This record gives sequence, structure tokens and C-alpha cells, in this order.
Amino acid sequence: MNKLTHFDESGQAHMVNVGDKASTQRIAIATGKISMLPDTFKMVEAGSHKKGDVLGIARIAGIQASKKTSDLIPLCHPLALTHVSLEFQINANDNSITCQVKAETTGPTGVEMEALTAVQVALLTIYDMCKAVDRGMVMGDVKLLEKSGGKSGEWRAL
Amino acid sequence: MNKLTHFDESGQAHMVNVGDKASTQRIAIATGKISMLPDTFKMVEAGSHKKGDVLGIARIAGIQASKKTSDLIPLCHPLALTHVSLEFQINANDNSITCQVKAETTGPTGVEMEALTAVQVALLTIYDMCKAVDRGMVMGDVKLLEKSGGKSGEWRAL
Amino acid sequence: MNKLTHFDESGQAHMVNVGDKASTQRIAIATGKISMLPDTFKMVEAGSHKKGDVLGIARIAGIQASKKTSDLIPLCHPLALTHVSLEFQINANDNSITCQVKAETTGPTGVEMEALTAVQVALLTIYDMCKAVDRGMVMGDVKLLEKSGGKSGEWRAL
Amino acid sequence: MNKLTHFDESGQAHMVNVGDKASTQRIAIATGKISMLPDTFKMVEAGSHKKGDVLGIARIAGIQASKKTSDLIPLCHPLALTHVSLEFQINANDNSITCQVKAETTGPTGVEMEALTAVQVALLTIYDMCKAVDRGMVMGDVKLLEKSGGKSGEWRAL
Amino acid sequence: MNKLTHFDESGQAHMVNVGDKASTQRIAIATGKISMLPDTFKMVEAGSHKKGDVLGIARIAGIQASKKTSDLIPLCHPLALTHVSLEFQINANDNSITCQVKAETTGPTGVEMEALTAVQVALLTIYDMCKAVDRGMVMGDVKLLEKSGGKSGEWRAL
Amino acid sequence: MNKLTHFDESGQAHMVNVGDKASTQRIAIATGKISMLPDTFKMVEAGSHKKGDVLGIARIAGIQASKKTSDLIPLCHPLALTHVSLEFQINANDNSITCQVKAETTGPTGVEMEALTAVQVALLTIYDMCKAVDRGMVMGDVKLLEKSGGKSGEWRAL
Repeated sequence: MNKLTHFDESGQAHMVNVGDKASTQRIAIATGKISMLPDTFKMVEAGSHKKGDVLGIARIAGIQASKKTSDLIPLCHPLALTHVSLEFQINANDNSITCQVKAETTGPTGVEMEALTAVQVALLTIYDMCKAVDRGMVMGDVKLLEKSGGKSGEWRAL
Repeated sequence: MNKLTHFDESGQAHMVNVGDKASTQRIAIATGKISMLPDTFKMVEAGSHKKGDVLGIARIAGIQASKKTSDLIPLCHPLALTHVSLEFQINANDNSITCQVKAETTGPTGVEMEALTAVQVALLTIYDMCKAVDRGMVMGDVKLLEKSGGKSGEWRAL
Repeated sequence: MNKLTHFDESGQAHMVNVGDKASTQRIAIATGKISMLPDTFKMVEAGSHKKGDVLGIARIAGIQASKKTSDLIPLCHPLALTHVSLEFQINANDNSITCQVKAETTGPTGVEMEALTAVQVALLTIYDMCKAVDRGMVMGDVKLLEKSGGKSGEWRAL
Repeated sequence: MNKLTHFDESGQAHMVNVGDKASTQRIAIATGKISMLPDTFKMVEAGSHKKGDVLGIARIAGIQASKKTSDLIPLCHPLALTHVSLEFQINANDNSITCQVKAETTGPTGVEMEALTAVQVALLTIYDMCKAVDRGMVMGDVKLLEKSGGKSGEWRAL
Repeated sequence: MNKLTHFDESGQAHMVNVGDKASTQRIAIATGKISMLPDTFKMVEAGSHKKGDVLGIARIAGIQASKKTSDLIPLCHPLALTHVSLEFQINANDNSITCQVKAETTGPTGVEMEALTAVQVALLTIYDMCKAVDRGMVMGDVKLLEKSGGKSGEWRAL
Repeated sequence: MNKLTHFDESGQAHMVNVGDKASTQRIAIATGKISMLPDTFKMVEAGSHKKGDVLGIARIAGIQASKKTSDLIPLCHPLALTHVSLEFQINANDNSITCQVKAETTGPTGVEMEALTAVQVALLTIYDMCKAVDRGMVMGDVKLLEKSGGKSGEWRAL
């Protein structure tokens, strides 16, 4: 059984020592979605090409949140992101919006948490902007899709 | 069709004027869960009563995140939380952890976003602490369970 | 000659005591502008109604910055904004963009700094987004237009 | 016509990928000024050599703000500043204070925004400290003076 | 034996519910000191009346830190400070600097932590500015001197 | 007599230029303690192995604070910590808790302030969690124990 690296041998939390890890290019891609009522979905969809641009604002919120990851997640290392982008997909079949984030850096630690944090905050921002008309929206399927770089190399969700 | 209140009549985003809203007691309860491999689940479960306390750290991260809500969500009003608590439920049947957050304030705006933000960051923190052994964890079912206070009064998820 | 209230009698800086000031509705309106090359101006103008929405992003940056005012300006009191909105005016005659911000709260201190901070950060965000094509842009005419509330009452720029 | 690099081909904002850019020494110098009434000017001037040190506090505020640039400007990359300094010039001829900032780093992105942000927040801090006696102060002429480093090399304002 | 109120009955941390507590005027005074070598002391003392104003900068750092208290201390409630001031006393007899902070608010929770946080960060700032000449400085005697307001009323250190 | 490097030749504060300093591995170890009443001490001691885990929460607060050092201390450079760990020692002989922090980075500046900031905030967090039962706790003996790396090399407290 592998161990949880965020704890030392006595079981105490620490910020893992990455001083000896090689600096490599790191990429992570994460995704998540928010499901809503058909009427709410239509409003968001409308805003994306005329006024009331919910997704444009959620995109900015996600980018800014990725920069706050080490402030939000206690044992995350601070790092200098070299790239963050968010794409939204509008799913008319089930009235949901999918958010996919790609984050990159060059350094000793990965950017999985930065990508996932951007997804979560982008979804929360959509929720915030639509909650006046639909409090029952549900956020889910938030997960890492793939990552590369570092000693563990490439990983892809099944 | 209701309108999205975060946009003015010309479709531009603004921080909604709450200057005329009554100051009332506001409560919101939100929930979410993270699903993991059986071995990961056992490690988290073990930590909750001896060493490597994943959930204790996620609880602190969630409380701290709730205080950062207006910094994370662009159109949220800053507000003075009067109470935040997180409860974790360990679900051995499906190797998942459920997080439920209760947030309260007395003021002109609700605390739904504060409760939801705490849930999301608590789940992200669990992911961070376990990702070395299980990158495929999935976060979902993040939603508001109930809220009270304000002009719209009580609301409960179906 | 009036004295600078942010210093005590011995000349030391302090956060002025507002504990005895009445809680009233406070409004402040501030403005500022950024001047650019004709080609840059055309790009910003184009973005405001199709893609590359510079002003939409600057608006969000301004709203978020207004919430960070007391973190940026050392002797500012933290306060709970009840409303923030930004309007941009596109001036084709001199290739400039004017930003006007209205901020409101109910409390013992005014929101002049919140309005001015939002103007400055919105202008900086426009600069950032256009600097790849025009490093010589100039920001100016940043000032308070009017304020109301508090013991000093109404004030209007000449 | 050059394009605005903060938008991708579909017109969506992103944090530009700088992963392939060379790490070079980057320097930026920016300036700005605040104009005030003669009596206000005399107070600031007096404080700079005895008590009520307005400019000393504005200098600290500017340095701290430069470190928050990527938190304030949505699409700015986080970076590790290696040097920031502010100089104030007291202009008795027109009752204004000029602020000049030099910022430096070694990395893949420039520090123009860090220098400009320090200027804006230093000016705002002067405004804040003097507004009790002079609400009509005006901030302006905020611009980049020169920058060096990176692929685009040296640039100087005309 | 009293119980630690930051834990609920099951021993889990939470942000204590203060929704039912009366809003009263709260004052807290805290103190602390830093001891240094005679030569370091002379430099700080000199700076306080000519150039190199260590204490002026430490004062600003302390005021700004008091506003970040709820961000630094996990279970602290966010609150709107109405007053913060720092006084430094120069102790030539033992080459130390004493810092005393007074913090005030009107609300349901006390400001002891805000006063203590300002003391600690002011002392750290003095350490930072003098460490190039004296790494062996020691900070100590950091404690609450008195507090008033709230259900527990007045308290004074013996 | 050495000079205070945080001031330039005219006595003005600046963020020292470290652009020419070599990037080396930097380690700093700092310590501090908090003294309390015997009953308070017993509660903290009890929590460390069953419920009400004061030290576990103080550890997280210290790690998170170390990441905010450059935001708290005005002239500190932002840097990417590669490791932070906190150890608490329970001193039954004098009813005190000692906190020792080790911080590391690879870069042009040291991490003394990061280690000391973590100590101070960990002690403040212990104070916060126990203050309901013991307002008279005293924090002290906060100092650097050793540091290595950089031009000045190794240093150890006597």
C-alpha cells in the first residue's frame, strides 16, 4: 500500500520537500460540469453570444482561482503557472455546461490542483450567476483527465 | 422567464445593489462528495482516528475558503460570516466521503456561495492529500441542500 | 489649515477611529480614462461587440479590485460593499476609453477609495490586454466625481 | 494589424502560454503623478522631512501592490520580482507629486504591469491620506517609460 | 474545567456561532518586544528620526496584518476593524523595542487576535529590516494586556 | 558598522535587488514558544492524541502563513518554498509548547522570514484556540536557530 506523502513518518502534515525534484514541463487537464434547468441553460447559452456573458466571467474567475491554488489548498506548493486556459462546452442534450481546464508550468511540482481548482471555481461562478433563477443546479464529474511531466510521467483517466 | 440579476439592463455584469435589502439571519447548507478507490478510502478512514488526519485538514481548508468566497467569485458581496462548520461522512459502501457545510451570517445577502465554496475546497483538499496514491478520484453531487433568510425565504432541495 | 487625519498628534500613521461615526448610506462615483493609438482603439471597440471582450474583463477586474481596497491601501478600513458597477464609454474622437465606477455601502466610512481603486485596476487591465500592440497608452484624469453620506455630506467635483 | 495576445483564435481570454519563452532579465520603469491644491502639497512636502510621512507610506503601499499584480490583473502571470523601488519627485511649480517605479525580474514574462500597478497604488495611497483636506486631487500621466528584456527587447516612450 | 470553544462536542473544529451574540464595542490592547544587539538598536533608533525609518514601516505592516487576521488564523471570524494604532517604545537600557497595539471594532466578536497579529507582524518586520546586521534578535513577551466589551467584559493582565 | 540593506543611500525603503545573486539551496530553522496555565496545557496535550486537535490546526496555519510571508512583510521578496514543516514539543515541566519550523527553497534569497512567520502564526493559532479558557498566555523566545545557503553561508544561534 502506497503512503500519503503529505504526512511524515509520525503522521504529521507537512509541505513535501520538492527541493531535489527535477524541474520539468508539467501539464494537467481537468474537467467538471454543472447541470441546470432547461430555462437556465437557455439563458446561459444566450449570454454566450449576446449579452449577460456568464461563461466569459466564469472563465476569468477560473483563471484567477488557479493562481490562488496554494493559498486555498493547505499543503500545495506555490508555483509560477506558465499557461491556463478554460473551455466551456454547452450540452443542449442534458442542459449542462462542461468546463475543461489546461494548466502548465515548468518546475518541480505538478499542476493538477491548479487545473482542478480552476474547474471548481468556474463552476461555482456559473452557479452564483444563475442561482437567482435556479438554486437546484448540481456540480459534478470533477476530475483529472490527464497530466504529464515529473517522475511519474504521463497519466490518463480511463 | 426570470432574469439573471448579476447583469444590468444592458447586459453588463455588476455587483447587485443590496443596500435596500433587510438585514436578516441567513443560513445555507451545502453538500458534495468525493469517490475513491477502496485502498484510498481505507487510508482516509484510518487517518480520521489515528495519524494522517486528511479530514481534519480538509475541514480547516473548507472553513478558510468560506472566508475567501467574495475574493474567488467575482460578483459575490463581501460579508461577515458568523458561523461555519463542516461534517464529513465516511461511506464504506461506495468508498466515498461526503462533506456537508453549514454557513451563517446576519446581513442583506445569503451565504449559499460561502457554503458551496467550503464544500468544493474541502473536496479539493482531500483530492490533494490522496492524489499520490489515486489520481482518478471524482468529485460530484455538489449542491445546495437548503437555505433560509432573506426575501425569498426558505428553500430546500427536492 | 486642516490636518491629515491619518496621522495622530505625534505624526504617526494610524487607522483612524471610526467607532463613533454614524452608519449611513455612502455613495462614491469616480472616473478615469486611458488613451491609445487609433488601431488599438479599434480593436477594443470591436471586442466589445464580438470577440476579444477587453472591457468585459476589465469590468470584472475592477469589481474584484474594489473588494481588495483595504488590502491595497494601508490605512483604509475594511468594509462591506453593497454595490459596485462600472461603465465604459468609448470615445472615438480621441481614441480613449473612459471608465466610471459607482460604489456603495452602509457604514461609518466612505467608499471613495473603493471607487477609485476599481477605476485604476480596470484601466490597468485594459493596458495589460492591449500592451502587446501598444505600449505607449496613457492613463489619466483619475478622480472622484461625487460622493454622498457621512458627516461631510455631499461633494461634487467642479 | 497585430492581434491582442490575451485572446485565443476563438476570441476567448486565456493566460498566454509562456512556457517556451526564454528566461531573461526584465526591467520596467513606469511613472505617474497626482496633482493637488497648494495647501495639500505643502502638507505632503512637510511630512517628507518631519512628521506625517505620506510618501514613506505610499512607497510601502506601492512595493506591496507590485507583489499583488497577478492577483489584481486577471491574465497576468505570477512571477518572482527581484527588485522594486519607488522614487517620488516633489513638483513645487504645479503642486504635484511624481512617482517613478522600477521593477525587475528574471523570467519568461515582463514586469510592465508590476511597475504600473505600483505607481497606481502609490498614487491612490497619497490620495487616501490627503483626501480629508482635498477631495479634488487628480491622478494622471500614468504610463510606461521604458522596458528591456525578452524577445521584443528594449522599448522607450517617445 | 472550561472547554475549548473552537471544537464542537465531537472534538471537531468549527467557526464558533456568534450569530446570537450582542454587537458591542470591543477593544483589545496587546504588546510584545524584540531584543537586539546594541549596534542594531542604535541604527533603528537613528532611523526613527532621520532616514531608514524601520519603525514607520513596521507600523504600516502591523496595521495591514491586523486586517488579514481572519485569513491567517483559521477559526477567526472576519470583522470590520474601526481602529488600529501601534506605538513603539525604544528601550535603551536593554536594547529592545516594545510594540503596543490597540484594536477596536463594534460587533459580536472580540479583537484580541487582531491586536496580537499586528504585534507579531510588526516585530517580524523589524526583524526583517535588521537581519542583515543581526540575525540573533529575539522576539518575546507577546501577550494581551487588556480587553473590553462582549459578555466576558473587561480583562487585564496581572 | 554594517548598513540596513532595505534602505537605499538616501534612506528610502526598497525591495533589495537580488537579480545578481546566485540561486542556491536555502534552509532556515526558527523556533518559538507559548506558555500557558497548567489546565490549558492539559487540554492541548489531551487534544494532540484524541479530540480537539489544537496543534494539528496550528501546524496547518503555520504552513499556510509561510506562503503569505511576502504579503505580510513589506520588503520580502516573493519566493517558491520547496518545503515547510512544523514540529511541536510539549513541555510538561513549564506548561509550554515549543514550535520549531524548517523552511527551504532554491533561489536567490533566504527563507528566514518564512520560517519565523510560520512560528508566529502557529503560536497565534494556539493562542486563539485556547483564549476562551486562558487569556494570559505569553508567546516568546521567537528566533532563528540556523540558516544555510547564499553568500553569507551557514549561521547558527549561540
